[in-house]
Amino acid sequence: MIITRATEYAIRAVLFLAQQPHGDIVLKKEICKTQDITPAFLTKILQPLIKAQIVGSQRGVTGGFFLRKDPEEITLLDILEAEEGPLYLNRCLTHDDACDRNSFCPVHDVWHEVRDAMKASLSKRTISELAQQQKEFLAAAAAS
Amino acid sequence: MIITRATEYAIRAVLFLAQQPHGDIVLKKEICKTQDITPAFLTKILQPLIKAQIVGSQRGVTGGFFLRKDPEEITLLDILEAEEGPLYLNRCLTHDDACDRNSFCPVHDVWHEVRDAMKASLSKRTISELAQQQKEFLAAAAAS
Repeated sequence: MIITRATEYAIRAVLFLAQQPHGDIVLKKEICKTQDITPAFLTKILQPLIKAQIVGSQRGVTGGFFLRKDPEEITLLDILEAEEGPLYLNRCLTHDDACDRNSFCPVHDVWHEVRDAMKASLSKRTISELAQQQKEFLAAAAAS
Repeated sequence: MIITRATEYAIRAVLFLAQQPHGDIVLKKEICKTQDITPAFLTKILQPLIKAQIVGSQRGVTGGFFLRKDPEEITLLDILEAEEGPLYLNRCLTHDDACDRNSFCPVHDVWHEVRDAMKASLSKRTISELAQQQKEFLAAAAAS
């Protein structure tokens, strides 16, 4: 069980956009270059973020991408769920009738508990906090 | 992000074996029938469990499968990792040099923390405890 590459790179791209001054629009090629993402893959991972209104796009020669939401209001869970869909952990949690063994399955509650703990951890981590931390890491590396 | 069907059905099969008196050998067709598993899929999911010495197999006319380890010593994590490999959550946790951004990536520690919490939850749940719970659920259902 592993998060998808799409989620991993989407977080990377959003963290980069969050570090632009005044929410500046960033050229696609700049995101690709600095974040090691191919143009085709960037297009693929940005689509769900645009749909979730986390990222905005502007067309044209000066066009590019920008953060649409306040970084304080974007969590890791938001990005993961935009890319992968709701975090279920097991298909028995997708809806009440998803598994006809739920009434006597002792593992159902375990998945529930683990999934809720994961969601809690990922939804308390904001892009604002993580972007600030990354700035500090990079500043410390540059100073050493 | 979701556990595989193999993990889900492997847990189901192991829970069934754990409920046999005195660790009796169970015919393959009995596991298939009671646990809603096709013979081909059962063979596929049992192989990693046999390799991990969780399940034993006996060939021949009276052959079948049995639990090789004490149910108190088998956890949900053991079964998940037998089927899916080590629980990493993100590829940056597979080994120290897996990602060249670890030194300035603020998300690396989050994956670490979430993965460790998942492992802790899944490794404290034993098959012994879950099988007992399932017996009680089924007894209550039969009595009602």
